[in-house]
Amino acid sequence: MTFSFELLHQDKQTNARTGIIHTTHGDIPTPAFAPVGTQATVKTLTPANLHTLGAKLILANTYHLYLRPGADLIAEFGGLHQFMSWSGPILTDSGGYQVFSLKGLRKVDNYGVTFRSHLDGSTHRFTPEKVIALQEQIGADIIMVFDECPPSNDYNYNVISLERTHHWAERCKQAQKRTDQALYGIVQGGIFPDLRTKSAEFLTELDFVGYAIGGLSVGEKKVDMHAILDLLHPLLPENKPRYLMGVGSPEDLFECVARGIDQFDCVLPTRIARNGAVLTHHGRLNLRNAKYARQQKPIETACTCYTCQHFSQAYLRHLIKANEILGLQLTTIHNVHFMLETMRRIRQTILDDTFAQYKRDFLANYRPVPEDRRRAI
Amino acid sequence: MTFSFELLHQDKQTNARTGIIHTTHGDIPTPAFAPVGTQATVKTLTPANLHTLGAKLILANTYHLYLRPGADLIAEFGGLHQFMSWSGPILTDSGGYQVFSLKGLRKVDNYGVTFRSHLDGSTHRFTPEKVIALQEQIGADIIMVFDECPPSNDYNYNVISLERTHHWAERCKQAQKRTDQALYGIVQGGIFPDLRTKSAEFLTELDFVGYAIGGLSVGEKKVDMHAILDLLHPLLPENKPRYLMGVGSPEDLFECVARGIDQFDCVLPTRIARNGAVLTHHGRLNLRNAKYARQQKPIETACTCYTCQHFSQAYLRHLIKANEILGLQLTTIHNVHFMLETMRRIRQTILDDTFAQYKRDFLANYRPVPEDRRRAI
Repeated sequence: MTFSFELLHQDKQTNARTGIIHTTHGDIPTPAFAPVGTQATVKTLTPANLHTLGAKLILANTYHLYLRPGADLIAEFGGLHQFMSWSGPILTDSGGYQVFSLKGLRKVDNYGVTFRSHLDGSTHRFTPEKVIALQEQIGADIIMVFDECPPSNDYNYNVISLERTHHWAERCKQAQKRTDQALYGIVQGGIFPDLRTKSAEFLTELDFVGYAIGGLSVGEKKVDMHAILDLLHPLLPENKPRYLMGVGSPEDLFECVARGIDQFDCVLPTRIARNGAVLTHHGRLNLRNAKYARQQKPIETACTCYTCQHFSQAYLRHLIKANEILGLQLTTIHNVHFMLETMRRIRQTILDDTFAQYKRDFLANYRPVPEDRRRAI
Repeated sequence: MTFSFELLHQDKQTNARTGIIHTTHGDIPTPAFAPVGTQATVKTLTPANLHTLGAKLILANTYHLYLRPGADLIAEFGGLHQFMSWSGPILTDSGGYQVFSLKGLRKVDNYGVTFRSHLDGSTHRFTPEKVIALQEQIGADIIMVFDECPPSNDYNYNVISLERTHHWAERCKQAQKRTDQALYGIVQGGIFPDLRTKSAEFLTELDFVGYAIGGLSVGEKKVDMHAILDLLHPLLPENKPRYLMGVGSPEDLFECVARGIDQFDCVLPTRIARNGAVLTHHGRLNLRNAKYARQQKPIETACTCYTCQHFSQAYLRHLIKANEILGLQLTTIHNVHFMLETMRRIRQTILDDTFAQYKRDFLANYRPVPEDRRRAI
């Protein structure tokens, strides 16, 4: 197992930390934002684009890859890295979140989940053992336990669900055969401090190499999410990476890095790009808006991405209005660059002990969009 | 006017020729294949992709750009090169073909065409003067006269239409104000040798800097197209480039280069790519086919394009089946590479006096698809 986490520096004013996750397929400087490549492709981007953008970790999804093209097929190719021609680190989500989001199409019991495919309605069953076996076939560098992601504000359900999630975490750990993949536990417990505490303690006892925090950014208030992160900070082992799943928006990065988070993933930058929305240091622009029709400036004048170095807002708007695929690629390149560049600056300012100032400056300029939270899922 | 055509070598066994078209925005080695960028983008490709692929000339369309985003808007940006960030040569088609294909939405008279937009049904009028003015706003290196593209096999209609096309060619030439754009005449006359001869003679008399051949590959038999090209070869001035509009498929390139054609454009490689069809030296593969599901080979083992250097047929099929945009980009890259690489070899073999042999070898292996002709329009 070549996986390890090296903590380089802790911020003096916040709980922010910077370090390096070492994996077989390369190093991931933290805090890290991982673009999402659900179906073995970060939508619209080539691996060459991702390398140019400086992506060090990408996500893929066990549920989606299991259904199409099949984990066995990916294994035939020597794993997902070879299949999609991405030589850097990959993380696979276990598919728990996806399966539980199939409302009406799934039935959970204490041993696993039976569900119907969103593609063709066929019936399938995931158990902790099955999900580990699939992730071993897919072959990512970082894999996840199979967990239940319950509604964050239903206490009684969270009590029952957390028992199950913990039992499944044990079974996942026992089921792991490959020694070259890092298996992370996932802390659940909704917005309830006692349950989150219990979960952190239980999983820490199981001694995972990394800890994910699940079940947040699913509709609860931001203050509740922040309170849970503040609570978990002293409970999780300092020398293990902490991954906040499915988060976040640009403002989330700052707030959650300040609370000790090392890893993020979110579909937001790629998804909104395909709707014509682009990220700037003042907030989001929607390029479909008529006011950009004759605008000769790039999305951001100071931006160093390929899109901003070559194209005006007017040209991007033209492509989007004309339903041209190139428009989706160029907005995606900009948004992923925005997130990764912001993370690069976050890492540097943590090292320099100026993160708190950078956070204040960024958030003073950035006007978040209310629906970011929901879209982030 | 920096436009000129330099003839380098004529093949000994066929009418094939190789040369260089010099333009303000760079040299175009001939014979040349131009990828089509109708709406100011070669679909799915960035300008950086096009440079890497070795594209030396791309097409755009006056009709489409006039409707959206507007020629005046493009002029505000300093022209199409700046607007789309493509620094190489561009050719704009006059839009005649598009306007005449708007069946039921257009009415032609001797002075121009009144038509309704396919986008919003609004009414517009194109005259030769208007179309030249639009192309001067758009600012391509090579521009086209406004012509009528009639059904190729209706003799009586072609007689009337040719009169009009010739009159319009004169008006276009008189209307031209910019001296830094090369205006090509367009030979029409359907499949009728007497009309084609008349057209070549009339336009040669007008002394254009280049000659396009229009109204072919629109449903007539291949032998008829070849006969027209054989007829025109001695009639068109040797020292001017000859551009066969809207052609062609891989096999067309060979047959038409052998008949003296210097320039081609066709949507075929980019359009079929978006349907999952890729070009090989044995013919076309459709990657949607189940037999490619577990195929670890690239599209062509010997191919040097980014797609074949990195991805298997199985991965491409997965992307296409999962409706992933990356699949469209990767198949487009391969198909455009296939056309441009074939053209590079054609030019080299003309220089080496081995073109006839290369043509025989290529066509012996390549199995054309019957519908290629119709799709080429």
